[in-house]
Amino acid sequence: MNISALLTSAGINIGLCVVLFMLYSLLRKQPSNFSVYFGRRFAHACPKRDSLWFERFVPSPSWIVKAWETSEEEILSFGGLDAVVFIRILVFSLRVFSIAAFVCMFLVLPANYHGKEMHHKQFPYESLEVFTIANVQQGSKWLGAHCLALYIISCSAWLLLYFEYRSIATMRLAHIKTSASAMNPSHFTVLVRSIPWSAEESYSHSVEKFFSNYHLLTYLGHQMVYRSGTVQKLMGDAEMMCRMMRSENLAINCKQNLFNRGLCGGSSKAFRMLSISKGPESVKGKSIYGDLDTSTREEVAAAFVFFKTRYAAVIASQVLQSSNPMLWVTDLAPEPRDVYWSNLCIPFKQLWIRKIATILAAIVFMFLFIIPVTFVQGLTQLDQLHHTFPFLRGLLKKKFMSQLVTGYLPSVVLMLFLYAVPPTMMLFSAVEGSISRSERKKSASRKVLFFMIWNVFFVNVLSGSVISQLNVISSPKDIPAQLARAVPTQASFFMTYIFTSGWASLSSEVMQPFALLWNLIRRFILRKKGDLYDEPLSFPYHIEVPRVLLFGLLGFTFSILAPLMLPFLLAYFLIAFLVYRNQIINVYSANYETGGRLWPTVHNTTIFSLVLMQIIALGVFGLKRSPVASGFTIPLIICSLLFNEYCRKRFYPIFKTSAAQMLIDLDRQDEQSGKMEEIHKKLRSAYCQFSSNVNDLSKSGHSDQSDNGESIQDSEDGKPGEDSNRVNEPLALQRHMESTEPNEK
Amino acid sequence: MNISALLTSAGINIGLCVVLFMLYSLLRKQPSNFSVYFGRRFAHACPKRDSLWFERFVPSPSWIVKAWETSEEEILSFGGLDAVVFIRILVFSLRVFSIAAFVCMFLVLPANYHGKEMHHKQFPYESLEVFTIANVQQGSKWLGAHCLALYIISCSAWLLLYFEYRSIATMRLAHIKTSASAMNPSHFTVLVRSIPWSAEESYSHSVEKFFSNYHLLTYLGHQMVYRSGTVQKLMGDAEMMCRMMRSENLAINCKQNLFNRGLCGGSSKAFRMLSISKGPESVKGKSIYGDLDTSTREEVAAAFVFFKTRYAAVIASQVLQSSNPMLWVTDLAPEPRDVYWSNLCIPFKQLWIRKIATILAAIVFMFLFIIPVTFVQGLTQLDQLHHTFPFLRGLLKKKFMSQLVTGYLPSVVLMLFLYAVPPTMMLFSAVEGSISRSERKKSASRKVLFFMIWNVFFVNVLSGSVISQLNVISSPKDIPAQLARAVPTQASFFMTYIFTSGWASLSSEVMQPFALLWNLIRRFILRKKGDLYDEPLSFPYHIEVPRVLLFGLLGFTFSILAPLMLPFLLAYFLIAFLVYRNQIINVYSANYETGGRLWPTVHNTTIFSLVLMQIIALGVFGLKRSPVASGFTIPLIICSLLFNEYCRKRFYPIFKTSAAQMLIDLDRQDEQSGKMEEIHKKLRSAYCQFSSNVNDLSKSGHSDQSDNGESIQDSEDGKPGEDSNRVNEPLALQRHMESTEPNEK
Repeated sequence: MNISALLTSAGINIGLCVVLFMLYSLLRKQPSNFSVYFGRRFAHACPKRDSLWFERFVPSPSWIVKAWETSEEEILSFGGLDAVVFIRILVFSLRVFSIAAFVCMFLVLPANYHGKEMHHKQFPYESLEVFTIANVQQGSKWLGAHCLALYIISCSAWLLLYFEYRSIATMRLAHIKTSASAMNPSHFTVLVRSIPWSAEESYSHSVEKFFSNYHLLTYLGHQMVYRSGTVQKLMGDAEMMCRMMRSENLAINCKQNLFNRGLCGGSSKAFRMLSISKGPESVKGKSIYGDLDTSTREEVAAAFVFFKTRYAAVIASQVLQSSNPMLWVTDLAPEPRDVYWSNLCIPFKQLWIRKIATILAAIVFMFLFIIPVTFVQGLTQLDQLHHTFPFLRGLLKKKFMSQLVTGYLPSVVLMLFLYAVPPTMMLFSAVEGSISRSERKKSASRKVLFFMIWNVFFVNVLSGSVISQLNVISSPKDIPAQLARAVPTQASFFMTYIFTSGWASLSSEVMQPFALLWNLIRRFILRKKGDLYDEPLSFPYHIEVPRVLLFGLLGFTFSILAPLMLPFLLAYFLIAFLVYRNQIINVYSANYETGGRLWPTVHNTTIFSLVLMQIIALGVFGLKRSPVASGFTIPLIICSLLFNEYCRKRFYPIFKTSAAQMLIDLDRQDEQSGKMEEIHKKLRSAYCQFSSNVNDLSKSGHSDQSDNGESIQDSEDGKPGEDSNRVNEPLALQRHMESTEPNEK
Repeated sequence: MNISALLTSAGINIGLCVVLFMLYSLLRKQPSNFSVYFGRRFAHACPKRDSLWFERFVPSPSWIVKAWETSEEEILSFGGLDAVVFIRILVFSLRVFSIAAFVCMFLVLPANYHGKEMHHKQFPYESLEVFTIANVQQGSKWLGAHCLALYIISCSAWLLLYFEYRSIATMRLAHIKTSASAMNPSHFTVLVRSIPWSAEESYSHSVEKFFSNYHLLTYLGHQMVYRSGTVQKLMGDAEMMCRMMRSENLAINCKQNLFNRGLCGGSSKAFRMLSISKGPESVKGKSIYGDLDTSTREEVAAAFVFFKTRYAAVIASQVLQSSNPMLWVTDLAPEPRDVYWSNLCIPFKQLWIRKIATILAAIVFMFLFIIPVTFVQGLTQLDQLHHTFPFLRGLLKKKFMSQLVTGYLPSVVLMLFLYAVPPTMMLFSAVEGSISRSERKKSASRKVLFFMIWNVFFVNVLSGSVISQLNVISSPKDIPAQLARAVPTQASFFMTYIFTSGWASLSSEVMQPFALLWNLIRRFILRKKGDLYDEPLSFPYHIEVPRVLLFGLLGFTFSILAPLMLPFLLAYFLIAFLVYRNQIINVYSANYETGGRLWPTVHNTTIFSLVLMQIIALGVFGLKRSPVASGFTIPLIICSLLFNEYCRKRFYPIFKTSAAQMLIDLDRQDEQSGKMEEIHKKLRSAYCQFSSNVNDLSKSGHSDQSDNGESIQDSEDGKPGEDSNRVNEPLALQRHMESTEPNEK
């Protein structure tokens, strides 16, 4: 591939991007597409439609200006801390690759170009290889420039990484404080799993007994988890019975009872009454569903336990509860909207084996994927293509076609295959048993990341046969030399990959073609109106984070080998910065979040990329017979690893758990301001397992359609007043039902 | 090497052992050696000397009978839980290798012997190779027998390991309960490190402020750690000043004050008065040395903080204290005698880098050790020896000598080199920064274990050049085949290794030659009397555990390859069982212990040995072209790893931390029985950094000479009565000094 082919490819893609962005700026102004392009705002309030008639048909860059001008605070309020962290990845990449681009353009590129005494062709016909390190002679003194560039890039990466980690840790602490002032119920709640089974008493009684015995002063109450399928069936049965009774008074009572008994909400009033009736010392068993007959509803060995203070909840989640570590397993509960209810029913003893099984399955999937990738890689060798498909020979002889096929087609095919990966990994993560949706997304994101790094980077670099790749892993000693030989030759492939997978994915992200098409079909063929989605989409971190990190990896590894790649990469990061900000402002909504827990993964991956860059450089300096440069590279690798270790010690614990100091301060603040009482009341109705689709209540709160289709009622942001309205009715009935079911207590 | 050479070697060693054991049974009866052979009992009470005159000069097996008959409870009371765990390793080995020996003798050995159609020589001249798997033909059906044996051994190992882990976990829980009833101060104490420095206030004030703020209800008091060198110097200065004063009254006062102010003990009475004087609510700052002028004594950023309950201490040790994870780092404190004081002065921020540095140093040491080992290994090839030392040729031509040299000498040389390893590793572990002596020993034991497995097993198996060994690690794929080729050929070397390093080390262990010699020199040349050691020796787990585990590794790996090794190994484990029980009863004392924390290391190593055995079997079956047997081996490896993972989940947390349930129960018991008050009083005098070598108090309690020579006064097992006697005196003086130093509070 030569410069002109590269420019053809870049030109096609730039053209495509510009056209698509202009199209987007038009489409977003059409009111019929508001639900596609303003999903987040649409959910909360309709965007203003005050534009003039003719303006609707003139493309404008206003969205770019808007995305650029939005401040970090706004991003935080729109998309949560995770969105800010995601934008920080892009900012970090922009900064570090600006430095790298500057250094490499003025230091490395001239060294590469003049690396060998040769007759240079006319510029457009110059092969790309002339600009890579492959053009530098063995033992050349120019290699010192590469080594210097390596040092500058590594040092600036360390510094920037350190400051990013520090600022994100600070942000996380601030975020916890803010969410505390918004009375986050998850701070007070612990998820207990693997409650020991006993023949004499129900799980609910065991929980009550255990926690009121061992956490006497701080235990507030608990809520059992029920097997999903069974209850919903019972709900239907009960409702039918209610209808049969016909008497309006009775029917109301019945409904109320169902509610108060475990299906949702439980009004704060009702609970206050229950707890008062139990006696003045409000410590003993306030199980919301505690006094249920176990034969009617199937309890699972898991429960949410509420504590009086945040500190108590953290203690209960961190200290080993029982002498048998497989019983009474406690974790801090996820936020109500974040709970992945169906996984709470999985017996705890299965989890470790599920985890191992899914990891193995993901690895197998990762290796099987090699087959289509190897085929794609074959396309870049035009001769092979001629050989395999002789009928194409005429077509491929045309210059433009051959440039298109070698420079463009392979990465398009690869990209199409890659679309199937994130959903598969999400499935694996769901099977794994994550207790929260954010956890599942984080786990999927890590799996996709491994997958991408292996299948896009390593497999393409080390291509050839499937077996030869496995050989490479099995001889770690030769890895630097192997990589040093293979990586520079793949520079042109990865440049086109940046065009196709990078730029094109960004324009597809902003265009949302599937949503647009679906919206059109709904409007004009199915003739439905109303919202496109039941809830605004949440940001697909498991797709976007691995992609951005993969481009970071490409940037680091190719920076000193093929510096020509850096300007294209910088363009990618700049567009990504604008596009994703726009999407966070307009499209995606923060339904649930990890609170910046993404960052340690990002940090570790960046360190991996850095070390990989240094190892490849070591290999290259070895191949080029430059012992001095090799010698200078080894301390860099050691420093990178030490730096990582230091950051792990210094910052990582903040992302795992909260500090006693902060929690106690927060608790005291709330106690002094008298907010604690309110929080305790709210707590009991915070977690609700079943959406109330049997009656009409679901319309009072907006229901929360999770990614995999199961629906969870959202009761988090309902105000207390709403709450009590919602469940006030069923109260009388409950008392009625209690009188009809004897011997329950 | 043939059978007769093997038997020669075995004969020499059996003879040596019998002679030494007889000699031991004589020497132990001589009163002059009591301090050598009854160190533990000597420290507590002299052994009875009621034997008749002539019995003293007749060898007798009474010690063997005694060692055999001692019950596990007695071992527990003599040597602590660690001693019991050590004996359980031997019991486990005896059990599993009895099964292995039975299976292999009747199943594998005939298969090996008749594996090839060949003319068998007379039995004594039969080469050892005939009995190994090397004698089985490729594709032979006999390999099924090996595979079956592999299954039986693996399954019995899993079962036995599971039951051992379970029973040791139960023992550990029981042990914690017992030590709680003996009022173990470490249960109530947390070691805080990395106290933030502030210009305005001393560390002691910071600690007081922090803990009385955030652990208001449970904080009892604290004790600072001081820089060792400085204080001892100051102590000396102070004493000199005291002497200069001359006045007897003043001098006594001065001494007492020094005591009560931070050097040791602080009587319980004195503290009760202090705490009473502070007010009825004994919560605020009761730093024992809190009110000291910081200019006279250099505080370190570390302190022992005492809590009111065990549960509170565990919470404080496990929850992250500050939002900066590098500040206020808390760990449960070690027992008072177990504290490694000089390491407490190391700044916490250095620790992570020290850890990495020592690990690297240990690895370098491990690889450099290859050089002498390779030389030793050269000796087994007699031809090479002839070549290197031509003058020995005449000598070596004699049959007996050649047998001696090939069968015996190499392992003696290796053994001598290995003597230097444990002290080196102890040094590394001390530099690493362990906070307790037991932790240091545990860490050293792990390092020695890695060292032994690498340098004794792998280096000998894969011998050749230093480089070729490194090549093996660098191609993991070939490891099974490489090992399968190399291991069986080294069977004869490892058999003689069992004789020399195994049996001989046991007789040297029981004889204690160095102690015996030193005792003789002291008595007859230096003419000193009294104790041989200042404190009874503690069991050298860091030497013995790796050795026993190494023999376990040999047993597993050679069981189906060279089953002839198993009877010798069983003999080793049987003698070890008797010898170590005898030593625990008579010689070693439990000065400090880990509470059975050794076992997870033992378990993991055994799993490693099992998996190694299975991998080697996989390689062997591959080389012998038996796909069925190979196919059956792979599930075994997977099962071993899954089994290990299960045990890690099920039992390991018990060895890391204590369960809330148990601690709260213990706390309640003590509160109800009114013991808590007494514990709280005792707590404040439990940890004492400086031994009282400036005055004579040290003679009232026996001082505790630690392995590396630093002395720590033992105040743990002094009864409360003793305690108050010991430190009653200084009380009056303290009040005097307080009146002379104004404005301290």
